[in-house]
Amino acid sequence: MASLAVSPDDVRAAAQRIAGAIEHTPCVESRTLSRLTGARVFLKFENLQFTASFKERGALNKLLSLSADERRRGVIAMSAGNHAQAVAYHAARLGIPAVIVMPKGSPNTKVKNTQVHGAEVVLEGDSLHESGRHAAERAKRDNLVFVHPYEDPLVIAGQGTAGLELMAAVPDLEALVVPIGGGGLISGIAVAAKSINPKIRIYGAESKTYPSMYQRLNGLPVECGGDTIAEGIAVKDAGDIAFSIVRELVEEVLVVKEETIERAVVALLEIEKTVAEGAGAAALAALLEYPERFAGKRVGLPISGGNIDSRVLASVLMRGLVRDARLVRLRVTVPDISGSLAKVAALIAQGGGNIVEVQHQRVFGTASVKSTEIEFLIETRDRDHTDRLLRSLQDNGIKVAAF
Amino acid sequence: MASLAVSPDDVRAAAQRIAGAIEHTPCVESRTLSRLTGARVFLKFENLQFTASFKERGALNKLLSLSADERRRGVIAMSAGNHAQAVAYHAARLGIPAVIVMPKGSPNTKVKNTQVHGAEVVLEGDSLHESGRHAAERAKRDNLVFVHPYEDPLVIAGQGTAGLELMAAVPDLEALVVPIGGGGLISGIAVAAKSINPKIRIYGAESKTYPSMYQRLNGLPVECGGDTIAEGIAVKDAGDIAFSIVRELVEEVLVVKEETIERAVVALLEIEKTVAEGAGAAALAALLEYPERFAGKRVGLPISGGNIDSRVLASVLMRGLVRDARLVRLRVTVPDISGSLAKVAALIAQGGGNIVEVQHQRVFGTASVKSTEIEFLIETRDRDHTDRLLRSLQDNGIKVAAF
Repeated sequence: MASLAVSPDDVRAAAQRIAGAIEHTPCVESRTLSRLTGARVFLKFENLQFTASFKERGALNKLLSLSADERRRGVIAMSAGNHAQAVAYHAARLGIPAVIVMPKGSPNTKVKNTQVHGAEVVLEGDSLHESGRHAAERAKRDNLVFVHPYEDPLVIAGQGTAGLELMAAVPDLEALVVPIGGGGLISGIAVAAKSINPKIRIYGAESKTYPSMYQRLNGLPVECGGDTIAEGIAVKDAGDIAFSIVRELVEEVLVVKEETIERAVVALLEIEKTVAEGAGAAALAALLEYPERFAGKRVGLPISGGNIDSRVLASVLMRGLVRDARLVRLRVTVPDISGSLAKVAALIAQGGGNIVEVQHQRVFGTASVKSTEIEFLIETRDRDHTDRLLRSLQDNGIKVAAF
Repeated sequence: MASLAVSPDDVRAAAQRIAGAIEHTPCVESRTLSRLTGARVFLKFENLQFTASFKERGALNKLLSLSADERRRGVIAMSAGNHAQAVAYHAARLGIPAVIVMPKGSPNTKVKNTQVHGAEVVLEGDSLHESGRHAAERAKRDNLVFVHPYEDPLVIAGQGTAGLELMAAVPDLEALVVPIGGGGLISGIAVAAKSINPKIRIYGAESKTYPSMYQRLNGLPVECGGDTIAEGIAVKDAGDIAFSIVRELVEEVLVVKEETIERAVVALLEIEKTVAEGAGAAALAALLEYPERFAGKRVGLPISGGNIDSRVLASVLMRGLVRDARLVRLRVTVPDISGSLAKVAALIAQGGGNIVEVQHQRVFGTASVKSTEIEFLIETRDRDHTDRLLRSLQDNGIKVAAF
């Protein structure tokens, strides 16, 4: 470990430097998630940082390490997400001018949430890569310090302070699961945790659309892409520093499906009453998708961020209901005579289903001209309840199909 | 205060009795909500109790006060909500048989969340009133102890323990705002807080659809009803014990609009990353609707519960976006020639709007047969951005209206 670019002392120095200006976020056992996963699950709520992610730790450690001259000149960062808010917020707090470069077409919420802290937001480049090039050019031109989101030992050391807090809160943890984007968080946490308990096992969580660290570790060509709800870890170029630390200290990188990430977001919302973004729920997703790795073990994981668009969150919630068959569409074919709708609606109510939407389909339906199709959106308790409801309609002579 | 049915000593005894079996929930200042309301806002997260509401405090204090014989016989409660889960959970934990009576047609989530703790759920009665009568009959028939949600000094004393914790966390609070349903929480908290600081001002928050305590205090006929997202405080018969305490110790009951409660739910989700149900957000709603009462003051408020249906939460989020003009429907009239849609879509993209949905309306539109109407659902940063986007379309000769 002596040869790694970030040492346990670096992380401890970061912890001292940022103390008081960063939330010491709660770390709590979730009894319900423990029951669901078979592990003993301890959550660290990094989504309760002021800008709602762990990124403040690394950004602040970097900013506090600048010389007076560098502070005066200002900083620049490239990010469409949490790193942008973290740099903008702490730079403003410390009186350091900050420029944030984001790709054109970045979600409006992200732009707004960065501007609100007083940073200058520049929309430049059609991809993170192009934005990065623009930021590097401007850093050179204007003599600004570039604050990289992960390829910087000071940033990694800052992220590692979350690991120190986790180990202090639950000293007998047997495993940690940490989301991987660029790799800053997991490498910082791994350095910190392994220095306290060399036997602890560290697992990474990557989304199936962006498994770049997994691919590099396994000597595969890096092939990433596709839509993901976990845009915070949708990073194609995992950091070299992070890679060298992960290779040494991390047990395994677990690649999780998009659907599992959505399930994890919903579980955190419904069970823990907390808002996680996709990337922030990725570690829990790994636990849900690979429970055998963690059965019976004490597992710590950061909810690393909570910045999810309200519209996206609303969709995820609705999709969760559909996935669990708690929200189901039924197509009912009935004779086109008055009273048909009333009869079906009454049967659904008797069966304990809540009718959310009704649509009468006359023109486009495939049924005979003498019959009509009615589409219902129904809310039920669970899949069993849905099945019972369907059977009870069929038992009453109703032609019905879920679709 | 000596004459009140619940004394500060009762609350302190309750705190001792329930200690260790109830979460000592965090109490945190919200800098962003302070900025938005002009007060200094301290939130107590009672939504982080295991069953996600303060109701456990009162229920457990009652259960722990039962004789061995009463425990053996079991308890019964009537509730479609948080009290049901609280009684079910702690009764099961203590090995006390529990029956919960809910009105027929109670939301499926509520039924499921109560059954999961092992209680017998009985769906009986078409209203809370009828369910209550059934529960009373069954209590008599089966010799069960009736655990009332608020009309019981032991329950009120239990709820008051949240007030002790609030005052310990922020000793120099100047005001408290507490949601009122039956009045158990506010009367318990008022007894506790006033015994520590007699000068503290206690405010209640009721929804406009169920302002029963407000009406009783002001000698008005009690007229309640209508749909509300705050079903946890949709109580027509405020408790007599609570009423006598509120009359003595509460400054004023603030009646809040439905829309403000929705805004408060969204604010807690987007800013605090926490899930509050309507009733749980009512105190914040009062702060948002009556900011002049609290300007510059240190105000504590419980987020009293977090049990909101996912489907309802999804709707509230979407309605919030519409209210803030961050989600807007545009109706555009264009010549019915190829390329029209492309042109408008390009202009919207240039203006920074995200197109969420598009619908081509040919048959039902009011426009000429030679033109066509296209409806867009657009996401923007805020109202200003929406206005700018509309103007830029108009400046490009597009006939457009928000609707």
